[in-house]
Amino acid sequence: MKKGRHTFIPSEDIFILSTCAIAGPNEGRGRFGSYYDAVLEDPDWDCKTHEKTEIKMHKFAIEKAIEKSKKAREEVDCLIGGDLLNQLVASTFAAREFEIPCLGVYSACASFGEALAIASFLIGGQNMKNVLCCTGSHYGAVERQFRYPLELGTQPAPSSQYTVTAAGAALLSTEGEGQPRLTGCTIGKIVDYRICDANNMGAAMAPAAADTIVTHLQDTGRRENYYDYIFTGDLGKYGTETLYHLCKERGLDLSSCLNDCGALIYSEKQKDMQGGSGAGCLAAVFCSYIYKEMKEGNIKRVLLVPTGALLSKGSSLQGESIPGIAHAVSVEA
Amino acid sequence: MKKGRHTFIPSEDIFILSTCAIAGPNEGRGRFGSYYDAVLEDPDWDCKTHEKTEIKMHKFAIEKAIEKSKKAREEVDCLIGGDLLNQLVASTFAAREFEIPCLGVYSACASFGEALAIASFLIGGQNMKNVLCCTGSHYGAVERQFRYPLELGTQPAPSSQYTVTAAGAALLSTEGEGQPRLTGCTIGKIVDYRICDANNMGAAMAPAAADTIVTHLQDTGRRENYYDYIFTGDLGKYGTETLYHLCKERGLDLSSCLNDCGALIYSEKQKDMQGGSGAGCLAAVFCSYIYKEMKEGNIKRVLLVPTGALLSKGSSLQGESIPGIAHAVSVEA
Repeated sequence: MKKGRHTFIPSEDIFILSTCAIAGPNEGRGRFGSYYDAVLEDPDWDCKTHEKTEIKMHKFAIEKAIEKSKKAREEVDCLIGGDLLNQLVASTFAAREFEIPCLGVYSACASFGEALAIASFLIGGQNMKNVLCCTGSHYGAVERQFRYPLELGTQPAPSSQYTVTAAGAALLSTEGEGQPRLTGCTIGKIVDYRICDANNMGAAMAPAAADTIVTHLQDTGRRENYYDYIFTGDLGKYGTETLYHLCKERGLDLSSCLNDCGALIYSEKQKDMQGGSGAGCLAAVFCSYIYKEMKEGNIKRVLLVPTGALLSKGSSLQGESIPGIAHAVSVEA
Repeated sequence: MKKGRHTFIPSEDIFILSTCAIAGPNEGRGRFGSYYDAVLEDPDWDCKTHEKTEIKMHKFAIEKAIEKSKKAREEVDCLIGGDLLNQLVASTFAAREFEIPCLGVYSACASFGEALAIASFLIGGQNMKNVLCCTGSHYGAVERQFRYPLELGTQPAPSSQYTVTAAGAALLSTEGEGQPRLTGCTIGKIVDYRICDANNMGAAMAPAAADTIVTHLQDTGRRENYYDYIFTGDLGKYGTETLYHLCKERGLDLSSCLNDCGALIYSEKQKDMQGGSGAGCLAAVFCSYIYKEMKEGNIKRVLLVPTGALLSKGSSLQGESIPGIAHAVSVEA
């Protein structure tokens, strides 16, 4: 059911029946280490390449989310996968093991939000019953693809982010009384403030986050304090400050509720520049910490707003700017 | 409304209100030259790079499809875009001009099918009213990304396909009485027969096409002759023969209805190896020839089954095989 300009509230209950999050060693030493279902001891999990590691992580997250739901694999109507690798190979090669109808999605680091939003439409209207969403990223694979191989030892700029090695999977279902529910989504528009600095993704993505948050609140008639927390994906510290500023210009004060998963995922002791980023970032934090805290009643309402920087290595080399996108998904206990 | 295992039939009418197809010079000299809305004289359309050309083609297709629908841009609830470029930059940089909520999808050359399927769920259940789907590809851009730059003059193998330079956009709507309707979709599973030869994509994708077609017909209780035509996307000549064989093993005889858009898109005079491929292939053929023939009553029922080969340059180099996927969408006049 449409609300306002771009927000949709499902007419049926859509429960988040189960989740699974798996993280790399660095992430395991971070703030949510005890919340993940599994933490790797070795960042390449005995695999020959970073890409094969990421495939293995997606598979683990999918398998475990299905197992925890107590559903049979055959009861999963659709698997929506996304990642940052060219041609989504991590999602694809993981998904091929499961014989479940598959959709591939890409909104860069906002992919988990896109997956959840699509899932809500697949289940709404009495269509599908169980839809699994899984996104992830791997530090080594992403560095090689977008920037430089780790072996080169290139130094990151202080404004850049650290792509998390993590994957998160959530099974959405028409069943699951008592579980947190997906209660609405606002699909974002691409917003481009013509930022060209690939070492400052936070600034590139913050305008899209502002646009989507403002649209969501206007459409629903809510104020920012309706939610216990608004979680962005990976704006990092500078990007978050930019978002505060942009929202303030539009009459919103997010200072009491805004948290950025990327800024939180590592502990203060870890030298992590702007914090974490990646398609695995909000996915892993939601599928571990946020979900568990909601089940225990410590958090009641969240707005997930993962953000994506829609560039490629090629687009930057061709002088293009970095468009941003953010999708908002509300989850309530 | 779910039918059988994996097929969904919308309970409301979903009309294909308008389409637009734009093609490169080679495609313009092919079988459907007179059907396209526009044919480029120069394969790079005055742009500095192939990628910028493809962005321009997506933009044209989107603009024109909206114009032909007589809807205002603000009435389009969502834009679903897909292409073969890393990080979907053609779709993204085109979409940023339109301020329409955006979803990025990737099923390789099956992306148009994925977009249509998702659109049917977005519109069904009385949610969205107008959803625009647009996918495309560009020969020069794809050759450089997956194989070799054109300037190198590398000779293709006889079993390989020629990525079309084309884009197709379709506006799906709750309005449009009398227009062809999207009447069902079957989201495909990833099927991998462990083909490793990137010069023989047809063989890699045919098993997925067989699986999806068989599933669709079983779910709906239809025989193959229910449809005037079953159009695959880009199996090419060898891949089509493989598909006949696989379907025959499962008791289906597709010889009277199967056509491959890739095998048809170029004329017999053109030396095109296996025929066309790409995310623009079925999109452009459907949004021009098939749609117009349906509006004129010459074709009544089609099953669109675009096929995708889910590899990347990196996955092949790492010794992986080529998984395939195919999504089926039925359209009836």
